[in-house]
Amino acid sequence: TGAQDSKGKIGTRDYNPKQMAIREKVFNTIISCFKRHGAETIDTPVFELKETLTGKYGEDSKLIYDLKDQGGELLSLRYDLTVPFARYLAMNKITNIKRYHIAKVYRRDNPAMTRGRYREFYQCDFDIAGQYDAMIPDAECLKIVYEILHELDLGDFRIKVNDRRILDGMFAVCGVPDDKFRTICSTVDKLDKMSWEDVKKEMVNEKGLSEQAADQIGEYVSMQGGMDLAEHLLQDQKMSQSKQACAGLSDIKLLFSYLQLFQVTDKVVFDLSLARGLDYYTGVIYEAVLTQAGVASVTTEAQNGAPGSTEESVSVGSVAGGGRYDGLVGMFDPKGRKVPCVGVSIGIERIFSIMEQKAEVSAEKVRTTEVQVMVASAQKNLLEERLKLTAELWNAGIKAEVMYKKNPKLLSQLQHCEESGIPLVAILGEQELKDGVVKLRVVATREEVSHTVDIHTAPHLRTI
Amino acid sequence: TGAQDSKGKIGTRDYNPKQMAIREKVFNTIISCFKRHGAETIDTPVFELKETLTGKYGEDSKLIYDLKDQGGELLSLRYDLTVPFARYLAMNKITNIKRYHIAKVYRRDNPAMTRGRYREFYQCDFDIAGQYDAMIPDAECLKIVYEILHELDLGDFRIKVNDRRILDGMFAVCGVPDDKFRTICSTVDKLDKMSWEDVKKEMVNEKGLSEQAADQIGEYVSMQGGMDLAEHLLQDQKMSQSKQACAGLSDIKLLFSYLQLFQVTDKVVFDLSLARGLDYYTGVIYEAVLTQAGVASVTTEAQNGAPGSTEESVSVGSVAGGGRYDGLVGMFDPKGRKVPCVGVSIGIERIFSIMEQKAEVSAEKVRTTEVQVMVASAQKNLLEERLKLTAELWNAGIKAEVMYKKNPKLLSQLQHCEESGIPLVAILGEQELKDGVVKLRVVATREEVSHTVDIHTAPHLRTI
Repeated sequence: TGAQDSKGKIGTRDYNPKQMAIREKVFNTIISCFKRHGAETIDTPVFELKETLTGKYGEDSKLIYDLKDQGGELLSLRYDLTVPFARYLAMNKITNIKRYHIAKVYRRDNPAMTRGRYREFYQCDFDIAGQYDAMIPDAECLKIVYEILHELDLGDFRIKVNDRRILDGMFAVCGVPDDKFRTICSTVDKLDKMSWEDVKKEMVNEKGLSEQAADQIGEYVSMQGGMDLAEHLLQDQKMSQSKQACAGLSDIKLLFSYLQLFQVTDKVVFDLSLARGLDYYTGVIYEAVLTQAGVASVTTEAQNGAPGSTEESVSVGSVAGGGRYDGLVGMFDPKGRKVPCVGVSIGIERIFSIMEQKAEVSAEKVRTTEVQVMVASAQKNLLEERLKLTAELWNAGIKAEVMYKKNPKLLSQLQHCEESGIPLVAILGEQELKDGVVKLRVVATREEVSHTVDIHTAPHLRTI
Repeated sequence: TGAQDSKGKIGTRDYNPKQMAIREKVFNTIISCFKRHGAETIDTPVFELKETLTGKYGEDSKLIYDLKDQGGELLSLRYDLTVPFARYLAMNKITNIKRYHIAKVYRRDNPAMTRGRYREFYQCDFDIAGQYDAMIPDAECLKIVYEILHELDLGDFRIKVNDRRILDGMFAVCGVPDDKFRTICSTVDKLDKMSWEDVKKEMVNEKGLSEQAADQIGEYVSMQGGMDLAEHLLQDQKMSQSKQACAGLSDIKLLFSYLQLFQVTDKVVFDLSLARGLDYYTGVIYEAVLTQAGVASVTTEAQNGAPGSTEESVSVGSVAGGGRYDGLVGMFDPKGRKVPCVGVSIGIERIFSIMEQKAEVSAEKVRTTEVQVMVASAQKNLLEERLKLTAELWNAGIKAEVMYKKNPKLLSQLQHCEESGIPLVAILGEQELKDGVVKLRVVATREEVSHTVDIHTAPHLRTI
């Protein structure tokens, strides 16, 4: 339809009941984890003053949605949840908090529906703000990513870890001029999508880096390991010349020692090629990716969803990411007072895509309601009795439905149960009413029992 | 602060953790009720095509937020959840569904913070779409309002019921010209805020109605009752001349018979003064109001919050409203196919205001986390042991916290428990570690017990 086309063009989507049921399940898993770790939650408005968002996202600022100037302040839709969080902390002079925030954010990006990329999408953020001893909250963030990905059962995953200070130190010792750190960093960030050859070309040809510097970077960014690699690099002749790099490497060591206590080192890898896009990171950064097994299903989805569009059938890649940003809150404080922060954002939309695809592939039917019993009748003229019993069930806290027809056919009542997965049907009939009983049928097996109809009926149903 | 001022000016607010905890409790009550009645849920984007919203809200259209034209389609923030719902049904050719939707909507209205009125606010909608036998889904909507207000325990309430057809019939038999129905209807709608004298003045002086017609309307709109009033008006010489009014009155009778079966007639009153603002209603309409006892607390809040602003200390009034809108979906269908709908919107922001005020007045402390146990140590150098035990608790599904310090003072660890209401603290010490036990202290009573530290510790904690 025309409306559907426009919907496509504007890059948003409706969630239908089945998608919502899956979404609720995923949210519950994530929220349970955040709560298990003692997080509070806050909410901020969907729009912020335009000036709040200005100068926080670098090049990506062009993707911010502005509201029309209808008089009053200039407003923009939030681009992420991190900047509003920092604004909230500064505005309320909060110096420590552990909070999660699940809400929609907005980006005027090219939508790629088959990859689960929309212009309106959910973010699930967990952040720890406060002046604490090094790497303890950082380790908890990684533990949380581990727990969530494990519980969601999306297949195998890896959590890559690096540190902005190590990257900057590396650039310095490889001879990258100071003013090119950021742009070279964003080229390094493309290593998950581009070959080293192409990344090198971009560095040398487009960004004017010397071939020698690029090759030295190339050596470092191919390194992966654990605590041992951090130790090795602390001894590295070149790297050890950078104080910044050494600080980062020591922290990586400390981080791994805490990750060992948390028993999550089997999935965490220290990866010098990890750069991450956002400007505001100041220390440790991390990103979780699904390894092939977990990704396969979405590739399939993209192929099914958009025939012929092979470009779309790339891996979902990153499903969580985050890091330390110690300077952001200070940008909103009139006196520049800093509040150190570390956090993680779960890439929930990609996870939804995978879960939806899983639900489609499996034979299992996704229920979109939780109705336990349908109140039906076999004969005509029993509407009043049906309504009365249904109300009794509701009053007893039982999830119950009744058809909104005076004289529905028994078959259509039973069909509704089967379609929406309602396990029980209470069937009223003249004879049963005379006898003061109600027939209770298990929809799946058609087993039937009779129960006396009184106020105890309802509590009784609870136990079934 | 400047930021805070701007925040005030733009008419939005942040929710802090305490407000969120209260909000979560209210949402859970409401969602449980919607689920008990077998509702599915959907979600729609925060912005719609501007044309989707055009011509749906009458005069209030000026309150719609538009997005800036940054290329592409013209977009507006949603003004309510009903129009997006109707658009969703038409677009997906859905002819029956029972769904709830809880989400934020946007209105460029004059914010009145002390009355809990913001430019961004939540709506909680429950709607039943489909061609069914008369008044059965309508009665269920009223039952839902009753259950929610009862469970939220906000004090006594009344649910006023009327029907657009009765209003229109009444206007006709009182001699209101056809083209003045709508404007006279919106004057009648002011009866909850203005005296009859003032309403009459507006009708006669501003809207040019004859004094005689106004007086006749005045007689009708003072009428309140139940099924008996509907019966009485069906016999009324004047009213019975209008076919429309008779259809509405018969349905009110039928509605009350179903409400009797649902045992909710003690709170429902047929009130001919109820008009409701929105254009799209076609049949039964209703509105729930808190009666004085329930309202008092918010009056107090307004007085405390804004000293001297007596204007603000009005009653919170309506806390739920809705009705039947059989024509809206057809407006979005290319062939104009109609889908009859009836629904209710819970005035959640007003309910939040009351609940927040209640929480403030009561001595009871609102917990913002659900942490069950804090892992603490009495001596220095036990960080590793604390982290290890905490991870064990997390892995066992227990909500646990640990301080992010190498050597926190026992006192500050205990203080944190008291401040955030954590009931248990597990205290590690050298001796206990040697003995393989952990001291578990009940924070409130300071009772202590020792437990062997092994993987059974965690499940054991669950039962406390």
